[in-house]
Amino acid sequence: MEDCLFCKIVDDKIPSRRVYEDETSIAFLDIAPYHRGHTLIIPRRHVADGITDPGSWDEVAQAIVTVSSLLKDKLGATGVNVLSNAGSVSGQEIFHFHVHILPRYADRPGMSGLAQKEEDAAEDLDGLYASLMS
Amino acid sequence: MEDCLFCKIVDDKIPSRRVYEDETSIAFLDIAPYHRGHTLIIPRRHVADGITDPGSWDEVAQAIVTVSSLLKDKLGATGVNVLSNAGSVSGQEIFHFHVHILPRYADRPGMSGLAQKEEDAAEDLDGLYASLMS
Repeated sequence: MEDCLFCKIVDDKIPSRRVYEDETSIAFLDIAPYHRGHTLIIPRRHVADGITDPGSWDEVAQAIVTVSSLLKDKLGATGVNVLSNAGSVSGQEIFHFHVHILPRYADRPGMSGLAQKEEDAAEDLDGLYASLMS
Repeated sequence: MEDCLFCKIVDDKIPSRRVYEDETSIAFLDIAPYHRGHTLIIPRRHVADGITDPGSWDEVAQAIVTVSSLLKDKLGATGVNVLSNAGSVSGQEIFHFHVHILPRYADRPGMSGLAQKEEDAAEDLDGLYASLMS
């Protein structure tokens, strides 16, 4: 969809640190991460949110599993929060369905979701990306 | 699975306020809600979390859409957070995959996920259930 930021990322019109892709979805590092390795998964096709079209979850399901495994294997996360906001009141800012994968680490417990933004999570995204792709 | 609380709810061995069901999933009101109408969706079959088996998301996808519509129509929510925690470090407490549907209301904005527990959200769950089923 024209003027959709995430459609432009799908089409590579805007660069991203893409960590995973399959036929129906892509995943890339969030540029304003809440936790180290915070990744967004989006369907390739434009759908506004995750409560409109049940098929949209099927399109990101393999990515949720694969990206979570990657974050555990490469970064040492021991769990993840899987979060998708629907509607501006919920915190959704970009109206192309996206799933936040928030890696969680044993030494940093705390509230789930987009509650605690760790200030150092945005450091050296290129280095982090290299670690994930190694 | 024996000794799984949510398998017992699926099997009606433990009562719940069930607001939706289909062939692969059920949904019921959380008894310790963070927001008014906080609902849990679970697959009928036992799977530990949402990052193990991609098929598990397909099993709850229709429920996510239908329950979100119900919460908007009956309770006046204008959006929802869709959240699933995987791993104890992430806040997961019951190891049967479950998706939190957190209704959000225009007069109560704030952080997404399990960040703000509204003290009045647990009031009159039976009345709330009656509203949802009317």
